[in-house]
Amino acid sequence: MKYMRIPATTANMGPGFDCIGMAFDLYNYIGFEAVGEAGYCELTSSGESGSIDLTKENLIYKAYAAVFHYMKQPVAGIRMHFENNIPYSRGLGSSSAALIGGVKVANAVLGEPLHDRELLKIALQFEGHPDNIAPALLGGVVISGIEENGEVFYRKIVPPANLHCTVIIPDYPLATQEARKVLPKQIAMQDAVFNIGRMALLVDALHTGDLQQLALAMEDRLHQPYRMSLIQGMEELIPQAKALGALNVTISGAGPTVLLVSDREKDFSPLLPLLEGKGVHARIIPLRPVCEGAAIIER
Amino acid sequence: MKYMRIPATTANMGPGFDCIGMAFDLYNYIGFEAVGEAGYCELTSSGESGSIDLTKENLIYKAYAAVFHYMKQPVAGIRMHFENNIPYSRGLGSSSAALIGGVKVANAVLGEPLHDRELLKIALQFEGHPDNIAPALLGGVVISGIEENGEVFYRKIVPPANLHCTVIIPDYPLATQEARKVLPKQIAMQDAVFNIGRMALLVDALHTGDLQQLALAMEDRLHQPYRMSLIQGMEELIPQAKALGALNVTISGAGPTVLLVSDREKDFSPLLPLLEGKGVHARIIPLRPVCEGAAIIER
Repeated sequence: MKYMRIPATTANMGPGFDCIGMAFDLYNYIGFEAVGEAGYCELTSSGESGSIDLTKENLIYKAYAAVFHYMKQPVAGIRMHFENNIPYSRGLGSSSAALIGGVKVANAVLGEPLHDRELLKIALQFEGHPDNIAPALLGGVVISGIEENGEVFYRKIVPPANLHCTVIIPDYPLATQEARKVLPKQIAMQDAVFNIGRMALLVDALHTGDLQQLALAMEDRLHQPYRMSLIQGMEELIPQAKALGALNVTISGAGPTVLLVSDREKDFSPLLPLLEGKGVHARIIPLRPVCEGAAIIER
Repeated sequence: MKYMRIPATTANMGPGFDCIGMAFDLYNYIGFEAVGEAGYCELTSSGESGSIDLTKENLIYKAYAAVFHYMKQPVAGIRMHFENNIPYSRGLGSSSAALIGGVKVANAVLGEPLHDRELLKIALQFEGHPDNIAPALLGGVVISGIEENGEVFYRKIVPPANLHCTVIIPDYPLATQEARKVLPKQIAMQDAVFNIGRMALLVDALHTGDLQQLALAMEDRLHQPYRMSLIQGMEELIPQAKALGALNVTISGAGPTVLLVSDREKDFSPLLPLLEGKGVHARIIPLRPVCEGAAIIER
Protein backbone atom coordinates (compact mmCIF):
# COMPACT_ATOMS: atom_id res chain seq x y z
CA MET A 1 0.00 0.00 0.00
CA LYS A 2 1.11 3.52 -0.80
CA TYR A 3 0.28 6.52 1.35
CA MET A 4 -0.90 9.93 0.21
CA ARG A 5 -0.47 12.72 2.77
CA ILE A 6 -2.61 15.87 2.42
CA PRO A 7 -2.21 18.99 4.57
CA ALA A 8 -4.89 20.98 6.37
CA THR A 9 -5.30 24.52 5.06
CA THR A 10 -6.51 27.86 6.28
CA ALA A 11 -8.21 30.26 3.86
CA ASN A 12 -8.63 34.05 3.81
CA MET A 13 -5.86 34.97 6.30
CA GLY A 14 -7.85 38.09 7.19
CA PRO A 15 -8.26 40.32 4.13
CA GLY A 16 -7.92 37.69 1.40
CA PHE A 17 -11.49 36.43 1.25
CA ASP A 18 -11.65 33.61 -1.34
CA CYS A 19 -8.18 34.60 -2.65
CA ILE A 20 -5.48 33.09 -0.43
CA GLY A 21 -4.79 30.00 1.63
CA MET A 22 -1.94 28.35 3.51
CA ALA A 23 -1.01 24.71 4.21
CA PHE A 24 -0.27 23.43 7.74
CA ASP A 25 1.52 20.45 9.26
CA LEU A 26 -1.74 18.76 10.19
CA TYR A 27 -2.44 15.91 7.79
CA ASN A 28 -4.92 13.42 6.48
CA TYR A 29 -3.54 10.18 5.05
CA ILE A 30 -4.93 7.90 2.38
CA GLY A 31 -3.48 4.42 2.12
CA PHE A 32 -4.26 3.16 -1.38
CA GLU A 33 -3.70 0.36 -3.87
CA ALA A 34 -5.18 -0.33 -7.26
CA VAL A 35 -7.11 -3.61 -6.99
CA GLY A 36 -9.84 -5.45 -8.81
CA GLU A 37 -11.82 -4.64 -11.90
CA ALA A 38 -12.73 -1.20 -13.16
CA GLY A 39 -15.31 0.30 -10.82
CA TYR A 40 -14.28 -1.77 -7.78
CA CYS A 41 -14.27 0.35 -4.64
CA GLU A 42 -13.25 -0.68 -1.11
CA LEU A 43 -13.10 2.11 1.49
CA THR A 44 -12.21 1.91 5.16
CA SER A 45 -11.39 4.57 7.72
CA SER A 46 -9.91 5.37 11.11
CA GLY A 47 -9.18 8.52 13.12
CA GLU A 48 -11.47 11.58 13.10
CA SER A 49 -13.37 9.99 10.26
CA GLY A 50 -16.41 9.37 12.47
CA SER A 51 -19.53 9.05 10.36
CA ILE A 52 -17.66 9.15 7.06
CA ASP A 53 -19.53 7.77 4.05
CA LEU A 54 -17.67 4.72 2.76
CA THR A 55 -19.73 4.25 -0.40
CA LYS A 56 -19.03 5.65 -3.85
CA GLU A 57 -20.67 8.85 -2.59
CA ASN A 58 -17.56 9.51 -0.52
CA LEU A 59 -16.03 12.84 -1.58
CA ILE A 60 -12.53 11.39 -1.91
CA TYR A 61 -13.82 8.62 -4.13
CA LYS A 62 -15.87 11.06 -6.21
CA ALA A 63 -12.78 13.21 -6.82
CA TYR A 64 -10.81 10.03 -7.61
CA ALA A 65 -13.42 8.96 -10.16
CA ALA A 66 -13.60 12.47 -11.67
CA VAL A 67 -9.98 12.19 -12.80
CA PHE A 68 -10.80 9.01 -14.76
CA HIS A 69 -13.86 10.70 -16.28
CA TYR A 70 -11.63 13.63 -17.27
CA MET A 71 -9.20 11.19 -18.87
CA LYS A 72 -12.12 9.38 -20.54
CA GLN A 73 -11.03 6.10 -18.97
CA PRO A 74 -12.85 3.51 -16.88
CA VAL A 75 -12.42 4.19 -13.15
CA ALA A 76 -9.65 1.87 -11.94
CA GLY A 77 -10.59 -0.44 -9.07
CA ILE A 78 -9.21 0.90 -5.78
CA ARG A 79 -8.80 0.06 -2.11
CA MET A 80 -8.42 3.14 0.09
CA HIS A 81 -7.99 3.54 3.83
CA PHE A 82 -8.62 7.00 5.27
CA GLU A 83 -6.83 8.28 8.35
CA ASN A 84 -8.33 11.66 9.05
CA ASN A 85 -6.81 14.15 11.47
CA ILE A 86 -8.27 17.34 10.00
CA PRO A 87 -11.55 17.98 11.79
CA TYR A 88 -14.71 18.42 9.69
CA SER A 89 -16.55 21.69 9.08
CA ARG A 90 -14.19 23.69 11.25
CA GLY A 91 -12.56 25.93 8.62
CA LEU A 92 -9.40 23.86 8.20
CA GLY A 93 -9.97 22.63 4.68
CA SER A 94 -11.14 19.07 5.37
CA SER A 95 -13.23 18.86 2.20
CA SER A 96 -10.42 20.37 0.13
CA ALA A 97 -8.06 17.77 1.61
CA ALA A 98 -10.56 15.08 0.56
CA LEU A 99 -10.80 16.43 -3.00
CA ILE A 100 -7.07 16.85 -3.42
CA GLY A 101 -6.46 13.42 -1.88
CA GLY A 102 -8.86 11.86 -4.38
CA VAL A 103 -7.40 13.51 -7.49
CA LYS A 104 -3.79 12.90 -6.38
CA VAL A 105 -4.45 9.20 -5.71
CA ALA A 106 -6.08 8.87 -9.13
CA ASN A 107 -3.14 10.62 -10.80
CA ALA A 108 -0.73 8.29 -8.98
CA VAL A 109 -2.71 5.20 -10.08
CA LEU A 110 -2.68 6.48 -13.67
CA GLY A 111 1.10 7.09 -13.65
CA GLU A 112 1.00 10.88 -13.13
CA PRO A 113 -0.37 11.95 -16.52
CA LEU A 114 -1.87 15.20 -15.19
CA HIS A 115 -0.24 18.46 -14.20
CA ASP A 116 -1.19 20.38 -11.04
CA ARG A 117 -3.23 22.83 -13.11
CA GLU A 118 -5.45 20.05 -14.42
CA LEU A 119 -5.81 18.42 -11.01
CA LEU A 120 -6.87 21.76 -9.55
CA LYS A 121 -9.41 22.21 -12.30
CA ILE A 122 -10.94 18.80 -11.62
CA ALA A 123 -11.07 19.40 -7.85
CA LEU A 124 -12.52 22.88 -8.45
CA GLN A 125 -15.65 21.37 -10.03
CA PHE A 126 -16.65 20.23 -6.54
CA GLU A 127 -15.61 23.32 -4.59
CA GLY A 128 -16.24 26.51 -6.59
CA HIS A 129 -13.15 28.44 -5.49
CA PRO A 130 -9.56 27.34 -5.17
CA ASP A 131 -8.48 29.09 -1.94
CA ASN A 132 -8.21 25.84 0.08
CA ILE A 133 -7.63 23.27 -2.64
CA ALA A 134 -4.66 25.13 -4.14
CA PRO A 135 -2.51 25.11 -0.95
CA ALA A 136 -3.68 21.55 -0.15
CA LEU A 137 -2.25 20.54 -3.54
CA LEU A 138 0.80 22.80 -3.70
CA GLY A 139 1.73 23.56 -0.09
CA GLY A 140 2.92 26.95 1.14
CA VAL A 141 0.80 30.07 0.81
CA VAL A 142 -1.11 30.22 -2.45
CA ILE A 143 -2.81 33.22 -4.04
CA SER A 144 -5.54 31.90 -6.31
CA GLY A 145 -8.71 32.73 -8.16
CA ILE A 146 -10.62 32.31 -11.37
CA GLU A 147 -9.72 34.19 -14.54
CA GLU A 148 -12.41 35.85 -16.63
CA ASN A 149 -12.14 32.96 -19.10
CA GLY A 150 -12.94 30.47 -16.33
CA GLU A 151 -9.37 29.18 -15.94
CA VAL A 152 -7.93 28.91 -12.43
CA PHE A 153 -4.87 30.99 -11.60
CA TYR A 154 -2.52 30.34 -8.69
CA ARG A 155 0.77 31.60 -7.39
CA LYS A 156 2.69 29.97 -4.54
CA ILE A 157 4.70 31.90 -1.95
CA VAL A 158 7.11 30.15 0.40
CA PRO A 159 5.96 31.16 3.88
CA PRO A 160 8.46 33.00 6.13
CA ALA A 161 10.45 30.61 8.32
CA ASN A 162 9.50 32.49 11.50
CA LEU A 163 5.74 32.36 10.91
CA HIS A 164 4.08 30.46 13.75
CA CYS A 165 0.41 29.63 13.80
CA THR A 166 -1.96 28.43 16.48
CA VAL A 167 -5.48 27.25 15.82
CA ILE A 168 -8.28 27.23 18.36
CA ILE A 169 -10.81 24.64 17.23
CA PRO A 170 -14.22 24.81 18.91
CA ASP A 171 -16.03 21.50 19.43
CA TYR A 172 -18.97 22.49 17.20
CA PRO A 173 -19.04 22.48 13.39
CA LEU A 174 -20.02 25.46 11.21
CA ALA A 175 -21.09 24.65 7.68
CA THR A 176 -19.42 26.88 5.09
CA GLN A 177 -22.83 27.41 3.50
CA GLU A 178 -24.18 28.82 6.76
CA ALA A 179 -21.16 31.08 7.16
CA ARG A 180 -21.65 32.36 3.59
CA LYS A 181 -25.33 33.14 4.11
CA VAL A 182 -24.52 35.94 6.56
CA LEU A 183 -22.35 37.80 4.02
CA PRO A 184 -23.81 40.76 2.13
CA LYS A 185 -23.82 40.75 -1.68
CA GLN A 186 -22.99 44.46 -1.80
CA ILE A 187 -20.35 46.16 0.28
CA ALA A 188 -19.08 49.71 0.73
CA MET A 189 -16.36 50.80 -1.70
CA GLN A 190 -14.31 52.00 1.26
CA ASP A 191 -14.40 48.53 2.83
CA ALA A 192 -13.12 47.04 -0.44
CA VAL A 193 -10.31 49.61 -0.53
CA PHE A 194 -9.53 48.77 3.11
CA ASN A 195 -9.12 45.08 2.28
CA ILE A 196 -7.13 45.71 -0.92
CA GLY A 197 -4.56 47.74 1.03
CA ARG A 198 -4.30 45.08 3.74
CA MET A 199 -3.98 42.31 1.16
CA ALA A 200 -1.09 44.20 -0.45
CA LEU A 201 0.60 44.44 2.96
CA LEU A 202 -0.02 40.74 3.64
CA VAL A 203 1.64 39.59 0.41
CA ASP A 204 4.48 42.05 1.06
CA ALA A 205 4.96 40.66 4.59
CA LEU A 206 4.98 37.07 3.29
CA HIS A 207 7.70 38.00 0.78
CA THR A 208 9.85 40.09 3.10
CA GLY A 209 9.31 38.10 6.30
CA ASP A 210 8.51 41.29 8.20
CA LEU A 211 5.85 39.70 10.35
CA GLN A 212 5.25 42.73 12.58
CA GLN A 213 3.32 44.02 9.59
CA LEU A 214 0.74 41.25 10.08
CA ALA A 215 -0.81 43.26 12.92
CA LEU A 216 -2.11 45.60 10.24
CA ALA A 217 -2.06 43.31 7.22
CA MET A 218 -4.45 40.67 8.57
CA GLU A 219 -7.33 43.03 9.24
CA ASP A 220 -10.55 42.47 7.33
CA ARG A 221 -13.85 44.21 6.68
CA LEU A 222 -15.42 41.91 4.10
CA HIS A 223 -16.35 38.77 5.96
CA GLN A 224 -15.18 38.71 9.57
CA PRO A 225 -17.45 41.52 10.83
CA TYR A 226 -20.43 39.47 9.59
CA ARG A 227 -19.20 36.08 10.76
CA MET A 228 -17.89 37.12 14.14
CA SER A 229 -21.30 36.64 15.76
CA LEU A 230 -21.36 33.00 14.59
CA ILE A 231 -18.20 32.28 16.56
CA GLN A 232 -19.00 32.59 20.22
CA GLY A 233 -16.35 34.20 22.36
CA MET A 234 -14.15 35.30 19.47
CA GLU A 235 -14.61 39.03 19.88
CA GLU A 236 -13.51 38.91 23.52
CA LEU A 237 -10.70 36.52 22.68
CA ILE A 238 -8.92 38.86 20.24
CA PRO A 239 -7.47 41.38 22.72
CA GLN A 240 -6.50 38.55 25.09
CA ALA A 241 -4.70 36.69 22.32
CA LYS A 242 -2.83 39.85 21.34
CA ALA A 243 -1.84 40.39 24.96
CA LEU A 244 -0.35 36.88 24.92
CA GLY A 245 1.74 37.70 21.84
CA ALA A 246 -0.47 37.07 18.81
CA LEU A 247 0.34 39.48 15.99
CA ASN A 248 -3.18 39.00 14.75
CA VAL A 249 -6.26 36.81 15.09
CA THR A 250 -8.52 35.81 12.21
CA ILE A 251 -11.25 33.36 11.35
CA SER A 252 -9.78 30.32 9.61
CA GLY A 253 -11.75 29.91 6.39
CA ALA A 254 -15.45 30.07 7.19
CA GLY A 255 -14.76 29.24 10.84
CA PRO A 256 -15.39 28.37 13.58
CA THR A 257 -11.65 27.73 13.97
CA VAL A 258 -9.72 30.83 14.96
CA LEU A 259 -6.19 31.35 13.62
CA LEU A 260 -3.55 33.14 15.70
CA VAL A 261 -0.28 34.17 14.09
CA SER A 262 2.95 35.02 15.88
CA ASP A 263 6.63 35.40 15.06
CA ARG A 264 7.74 32.79 17.59
CA GLU A 265 6.23 29.96 19.59
CA LYS A 266 3.82 31.34 22.16
CA ASP A 267 1.66 29.71 24.81
CA PHE A 268 -1.95 30.57 24.11
CA SER A 269 -3.41 27.96 26.48
CA PRO A 270 -4.65 30.69 28.91
CA LEU A 271 -7.28 31.46 26.26
CA LEU A 272 -9.06 28.14 26.81
CA PRO A 273 -10.48 28.97 30.28
CA LEU A 274 -11.71 32.26 28.81
CA LEU A 275 -13.63 30.35 26.14
CA GLU A 276 -14.84 27.77 28.67
CA GLY A 277 -16.25 30.68 30.67
CA LYS A 278 -18.30 31.57 27.60
CA GLY A 279 -19.50 27.98 27.32
CA VAL A 280 -17.22 27.21 24.37
CA HIS A 281 -15.29 23.97 24.51
CA ALA A 282 -12.27 24.07 22.24
CA ARG A 283 -8.84 22.64 21.74
CA ILE A 284 -5.73 24.56 20.85
CA ILE A 285 -3.05 23.29 18.45
CA PRO A 286 0.22 24.95 17.48
CA LEU A 287 0.88 24.46 13.76
CA ARG A 288 3.61 25.43 11.31
CA PRO A 289 3.10 26.38 7.68
CA VAL A 290 4.46 23.72 5.34
CA CYS A 291 5.95 24.13 1.89
CA GLU A 292 4.95 20.75 0.56
CA GLY A 293 1.42 19.99 -0.57
CA ALA A 294 -0.21 16.61 -1.06
CA ALA A 295 2.41 13.94 -1.74
CA ILE A 296 3.08 10.23 -1.54
CA ILE A 297 5.13 9.45 1.56
CA GLU A 298 7.03 6.48 2.94
CA ARG A 299 5.57 4.91 6.08
CA MET B 1 20.25 78.14 -4.68
CA LYS B 2 19.50 74.50 -3.89
CA TYR B 3 17.32 72.28 -6.06
CA MET B 4 14.64 69.87 -4.91
CA ARG B 5 13.65 67.21 -7.47
CA ILE B 6 10.26 65.50 -7.12
CA PRO B 7 9.08 62.57 -9.27
CA ALA B 8 5.78 62.12 -11.07
CA THR B 9 3.70 59.24 -9.76
CA THR B 10 1.02 56.89 -10.98
CA ALA B 11 -1.63 55.62 -8.57
CA ASN B 12 -3.85 52.51 -8.52
CA MET B 13 -1.86 50.36 -11.01
CA GLY B 14 -5.11 48.61 -11.90
CA PRO B 15 -6.55 46.85 -8.84
CA GLY B 16 -4.97 48.99 -6.12
CA PHE B 17 -7.51 51.81 -5.97
CA ASP B 18 -6.28 54.35 -3.38
CA CYS B 19 -3.73 51.80 -2.08
CA ILE B 20 -0.63 51.83 -4.29
CA GLY B 21 1.48 54.20 -6.33
CA MET B 22 4.79 54.27 -8.21
CA ALA B 23 7.36 57.00 -8.91
CA PHE B 24 8.64 57.76 -12.44
CA ASP B 25 11.65 59.47 -13.95
CA LEU B 26 9.63 62.56 -14.89
CA TYR B 27 10.39 65.37 -12.48
CA ASN B 28 9.42 68.78 -11.17
CA TYR B 29 12.22 70.93 -9.76
CA ILE B 30 12.10 73.59 -7.09
CA GLY B 31 15.05 75.94 -6.83
CA PHE B 32 14.98 77.41 -3.32
CA GLU B 33 16.85 79.59 -0.84
CA ALA B 34 15.87 80.93 2.54
CA VAL B 35 15.79 84.72 2.27
CA GLY B 36 14.28 87.70 4.05
CA GLU B 37 12.16 87.94 7.16
CA ALA B 38 9.70 85.37 8.41
CA GLY B 39 6.71 85.33 6.05
CA TYR B 40 8.63 86.62 3.04
CA CYS B 41 7.60 84.75 -0.11
CA GLU B 42 8.99 85.15 -3.62
CA LEU B 43 7.78 82.64 -6.19
CA THR B 44 8.65 82.36 -9.88
CA SER B 45 8.09 79.65 -12.45
CA SER B 46 8.99 78.23 -15.82
CA GLY B 47 8.12 75.13 -17.85
CA GLU B 48 4.61 73.54 -17.83
CA SER B 49 3.68 75.86 -14.98
CA GLY B 50 1.35 77.91 -17.21
CA SER B 51 -1.21 79.69 -15.09
CA ILE B 52 0.38 78.70 -11.80
CA ASP B 53 -0.59 80.81 -8.78
CA LEU B 54 2.53 82.55 -7.50
CA THR B 55 0.95 83.98 -4.34
CA LYS B 56 0.88 82.41 -0.90
CA GLU B 57 -2.13 80.40 -2.15
CA ASN B 58 0.29 78.34 -4.23
CA LEU B 59 0.00 74.67 -3.15
CA ILE B 60 3.77 74.24 -2.83
CA TYR B 61 3.97 77.29 -0.60
CA LYS B 62 0.98 76.15 1.47
CA ALA B 63 2.64 72.77 2.08
CA TYR B 64 5.90 74.58 2.87
CA ALA B 65 4.15 76.80 5.41
CA ALA B 66 2.28 73.84 6.94
CA VAL B 67 5.58 72.31 8.07
CA PHE B 68 6.42 75.49 10.02
CA HIS B 69 2.92 75.51 11.53
CA TYR B 70 3.43 71.86 12.54
CA MET B 71 6.75 72.83 14.14
CA LYS B 72 5.07 75.82 15.81
CA GLN B 73 7.62 78.18 14.24
CA PRO B 74 7.30 81.32 12.15
CA VAL B 75 7.35 80.51 8.41
CA ALA B 76 10.91 81.20 7.22
CA GLY B 77 11.22 83.66 4.32
CA ILE B 78 11.76 81.80 1.05
CA ARG B 79 12.53 82.33 -2.61
CA MET B 80 11.36 79.44 -4.81
CA HIS B 81 11.55 78.88 -8.55
CA PHE B 82 9.34 76.16 -9.98
CA GLU B 83 10.28 74.17 -13.06
CA ASN B 84 7.32 71.94 -13.77
CA ASN B 85 7.44 69.03 -16.17
CA ILE B 86 4.61 66.97 -14.69
CA PRO B 87 1.41 67.98 -16.50
CA TYR B 88 -1.57 69.13 -14.41
CA SER B 89 -4.74 67.17 -13.81
CA ARG B 90 -3.66 64.27 -15.97
CA GLY B 91 -3.33 61.52 -13.35
CA LEU B 92 0.44 61.80 -12.91
CA GLY B 93 0.53 63.15 -9.38
CA SER B 94 1.24 66.84 -10.09
CA SER B 95 -0.48 68.03 -6.92
CA SER B 96 1.22 65.36 -4.84
CA ALA B 97 4.55 66.49 -6.32
CA ALA B 98 3.68 70.04 -5.28
CA LEU B 99 2.81 68.98 -1.73
CA ILE B 100 5.87 66.80 -1.29
CA GLY B 101 8.06 69.51 -2.83
CA GLY B 102 6.74 72.04 -0.34
CA VAL B 103 7.20 69.89 2.77
CA LYS B 104 10.65 68.67 1.67
CA VAL B 105 11.88 72.23 1.00
CA ALA B 106 10.61 73.32 4.42
CA ASN B 107 12.30 70.36 6.09
CA ALA B 108 15.57 71.23 4.30
CA VAL B 109 15.35 74.88 5.36
CA LEU B 110 14.74 73.76 8.96
CA GLY B 111 17.74 71.40 8.97
CA GLU B 112 15.82 68.13 8.43
CA PRO B 113 14.08 67.85 11.83
CA LEU B 114 11.20 65.75 10.48
CA HIS B 115 11.02 62.10 9.52
CA ASP B 116 9.28 60.89 6.35
CA ARG B 117 6.31 59.74 8.41
CA GLU B 118 5.71 63.25 9.71
CA LEU B 119 6.20 64.84 6.30
CA LEU B 120 3.65 62.43 4.85
CA LYS B 121 1.20 63.28 7.59
CA ILE B 122 1.52 67.00 6.89
CA ALA B 123 1.11 66.53 3.12
CA LEU B 124 -1.83 64.19 3.72
CA GLN B 125 -3.84 67.03 5.30
CA PHE B 126 -4.15 68.49 1.81
CA GLU B 127 -4.75 65.29 -0.14
CA GLY B 128 -6.86 62.81 1.85
CA HIS B 129 -5.09 59.63 0.77
CA PRO B 130 -1.42 58.85 0.45
CA ASP B 131 -1.32 56.80 -2.77
CA ASN B 132 0.52 59.49 -4.79
CA ILE B 133 2.27 61.47 -2.08
CA ALA B 134 3.95 58.39 -0.57
CA PRO B 135 5.84 57.38 -3.75
CA ALA B 136 6.56 61.06 -4.55
CA LEU B 137 8.30 61.25 -1.17
CA LEU B 138 9.85 57.78 -0.98
CA GLY B 139 10.30 56.66 -4.60
CA GLY B 140 9.71 53.12 -5.82
CA VAL B 141 6.34 51.43 -5.50
CA VAL B 142 4.58 52.22 -2.25
CA ILE B 143 1.65 50.42 -0.66
CA SER B 144 -0.11 52.90 1.59
CA GLY B 145 -3.28 53.70 3.44
CA ILE B 146 -4.78 55.00 6.64
CA GLU B 147 -4.88 52.92 9.82
CA GLU B 148 -8.05 52.77 11.90
CA ASN B 149 -6.43 55.17 14.38
CA GLY B 150 -5.92 57.72 11.59
CA GLU B 151 -2.17 57.14 11.20
CA VAL B 152 -0.78 56.67 7.72
CA PHE B 153 0.91 53.37 6.88
CA TYR B 154 3.29 52.80 3.99
CA ARG B 155 5.55 50.12 2.69
CA LYS B 156 8.02 50.60 -0.14
CA ILE B 157 8.85 47.94 -2.72
CA VAL B 158 11.81 48.29 -5.08
CA PRO B 159 10.33 47.96 -8.57
CA PRO B 160 11.62 45.14 -10.80
CA ALA B 161 14.52 46.27 -13.01
CA ASN B 162 12.79 45.08 -16.18
CA LEU B 163 9.56 47.01 -15.59
CA HIS B 164 9.05 49.50 -18.43
CA CYS B 165 6.24 52.00 -18.49
CA THR B 166 4.75 54.18 -21.17
CA VAL B 167 2.24 56.93 -20.52
CA ILE B 168 -0.19 58.30 -23.06
CA ILE B 169 -1.15 61.78 -21.95
CA PRO B 170 -4.22 63.29 -23.63
CA ASP B 171 -4.20 67.06 -24.14
CA TYR B 172 -7.24 67.62 -21.93
CA PRO B 173 -7.30 67.65 -18.12
CA LEU B 174 -9.60 65.53 -15.95
CA ALA B 175 -10.17 66.76 -12.41
CA THR B 176 -9.80 64.00 -9.82
CA GLN B 177 -13.05 65.17 -8.22
CA GLU B 178 -14.90 64.60 -11.51
CA ALA B 179 -13.35 61.17 -11.90
CA ARG B 180 -14.41 60.29 -8.34
CA LYS B 181 -18.01 61.37 -8.87
CA VAL B 182 -18.65 58.54 -11.32
CA LEU B 183 -17.66 55.87 -8.79
CA PRO B 184 -20.37 53.98 -6.89
CA LYS B 185 -20.39 54.00 -3.09
CA GLN B 186 -21.46 50.35 -2.98
CA ILE B 187 -19.96 47.58 -5.06
CA ALA B 188 -20.57 43.86 -5.52
CA MET B 189 -18.74 41.61 -3.05
CA GLN B 190 -17.51 39.55 -6.00
CA ASP B 191 -15.90 42.63 -7.57
CA ALA B 192 -14.07 43.32 -4.30
CA VAL B 193 -12.86 39.71 -4.20
CA PHE B 194 -11.77 40.05 -7.83
CA ASN B 195 -9.61 43.09 -7.00
CA ILE B 196 -8.19 41.58 -3.81
CA GLY B 197 -6.93 38.57 -5.75
CA ARG B 198 -5.40 40.77 -8.45
CA MET B 199 -3.78 43.03 -5.88
CA ALA B 200 -2.18 39.99 -4.27
CA LEU B 201 -0.80 38.96 -7.67
CA LEU B 202 0.44 42.49 -8.35
CA VAL B 203 2.45 42.69 -5.12
CA ASP B 204 3.74 39.18 -5.75
CA ALA B 205 4.85 40.15 -9.28
CA LEU B 206 6.61 43.26 -7.97
CA HIS B 207 8.53 41.15 -5.46
CA THR B 208 9.38 38.27 -7.78
CA GLY B 209 9.89 40.28 -10.98
CA ASP B 210 7.66 37.88 -12.89
CA LEU B 211 6.10 40.56 -15.04
CA GLN B 212 4.11 38.19 -17.27
CA GLN B 213 1.80 38.00 -14.29
CA LEU B 214 0.87 41.67 -14.78
CA ALA B 215 -1.44 40.68 -17.62
CA LEU B 216 -3.71 39.24 -14.96
CA ALA B 217 -2.57 41.23 -11.93
CA MET B 218 -3.37 44.70 -13.26
CA GLU B 219 -7.04 44.03 -13.96
CA ASP B 220 -9.59 46.07 -12.05
CA ARG B 221 -13.33 46.13 -11.41
CA LEU B 222 -13.59 48.92 -8.84
CA HIS B 223 -12.88 52.12 -10.70
CA GLN B 224 -11.81 51.59 -14.31
CA PRO B 225 -15.15 50.23 -15.58
CA TYR B 226 -16.77 53.48 -14.35
CA ARG B 227 -14.05 55.85 -15.52
CA MET B 228 -13.40 54.29 -18.89
CA SER B 229 -16.15 56.37 -20.51
CA LEU B 230 -14.44 59.59 -19.33
CA ILE B 231 -11.33 58.68 -21.30
CA GLN B 232 -12.17 58.80 -24.96
CA GLY B 233 -10.63 56.10 -27.09
CA MET B 234 -9.24 54.07 -24.19
CA GLU B 235 -11.45 51.03 -24.60
CA GLU B 236 -10.42 50.61 -28.26
CA LEU B 237 -6.80 51.33 -27.40
CA ILE B 238 -6.40 48.43 -24.95
CA PRO B 239 -6.35 45.51 -27.45
CA GLN B 240 -4.11 47.52 -29.81
CA ALA B 241 -1.64 48.29 -27.03
CA LYS B 242 -1.55 44.62 -26.03
CA ALA B 243 -0.94 43.66 -29.66
CA LEU B 244 2.07 46.01 -29.60
CA GLY B 245 3.51 44.29 -26.53
CA ALA B 246 1.86 45.90 -23.52
CA LEU B 247 1.41 43.41 -20.69
CA ASN B 248 -1.46 45.52 -19.46
CA VAL B 249 -3.08 48.93 -19.80
CA THR B 250 -4.57 50.90 -16.92
CA ILE B 251 -5.78 54.37 -16.07
CA SER B 252 -3.02 56.33 -14.32
CA GLY B 253 -4.55 57.63 -11.11
CA ALA B 254 -7.87 59.29 -11.91
CA GLY B 255 -6.85 59.69 -15.58
CA PRO B 256 -6.97 60.75 -18.31
CA THR B 257 -3.39 59.49 -18.68
CA VAL B 258 -3.21 55.84 -19.66
CA LEU B 259 -0.37 53.68 -18.33
CA LEU B 260 1.06 50.83 -20.39
CA VAL B 261 3.43 48.34 -18.79
CA SER B 262 5.85 46.04 -20.58
CA ASP B 263 8.88 43.92 -19.74
CA ARG B 264 11.13 45.69 -22.27
CA GLU B 265 11.17 48.87 -24.28
CA LYS B 266 8.39 48.84 -26.85
CA ASP B 267 7.30 51.30 -29.50
CA PHE B 268 3.74 52.31 -28.82
CA SER B 269 3.73 55.28 -31.20
CA PRO B 270 1.33 53.50 -33.62
CA LEU B 271 -1.35 54.13 -30.97
CA LEU B 272 -1.31 57.88 -31.53
CA PRO B 273 -2.94 57.84 -34.99
CA LEU B 274 -5.62 55.55 -33.52
CA LEU B 275 -6.37 58.16 -30.87
CA GLU B 276 -6.19 61.01 -33.40
CA GLY B 277 -8.81 59.14 -35.41
CA LYS B 278 -11.04 59.34 -32.32
CA GLY B 279 -10.35 63.07 -32.05
CA VAL B 280 -8.01 62.63 -29.09
CA HIS B 281 -4.73 64.53 -29.23
CA ALA B 282 -2.14 62.98 -26.95
CA ARG B 283 1.54 62.57 -26.46
CA ILE B 284 3.34 59.39 -25.56
CA ILE B 285 6.29 59.22 -23.16
CA PRO B 286 8.34 56.16 -22.17
CA LEU B 287 9.14 56.28 -18.44
CA ARG B 288 11.06 54.11 -16.01
CA PRO B 289 10.15 53.54 -12.38
CA VAL B 290 12.62 55.20 -10.02
CA CYS B 291 13.72 54.14 -6.57
CA GLU B 292 14.49 57.58 -5.24
CA GLY B 293 11.78 59.96 -4.10
CA ALA B 294 11.98 63.71 -3.63
CA ALA B 295 15.58 64.76 -2.94
CA ILE B 296 17.98 67.69 -3.13
CA ILE B 297 20.13 67.35 -6.24
CA GLU B 298 23.25 69.02 -7.63
CA ARG B 299 22.74 71.10 -10.77
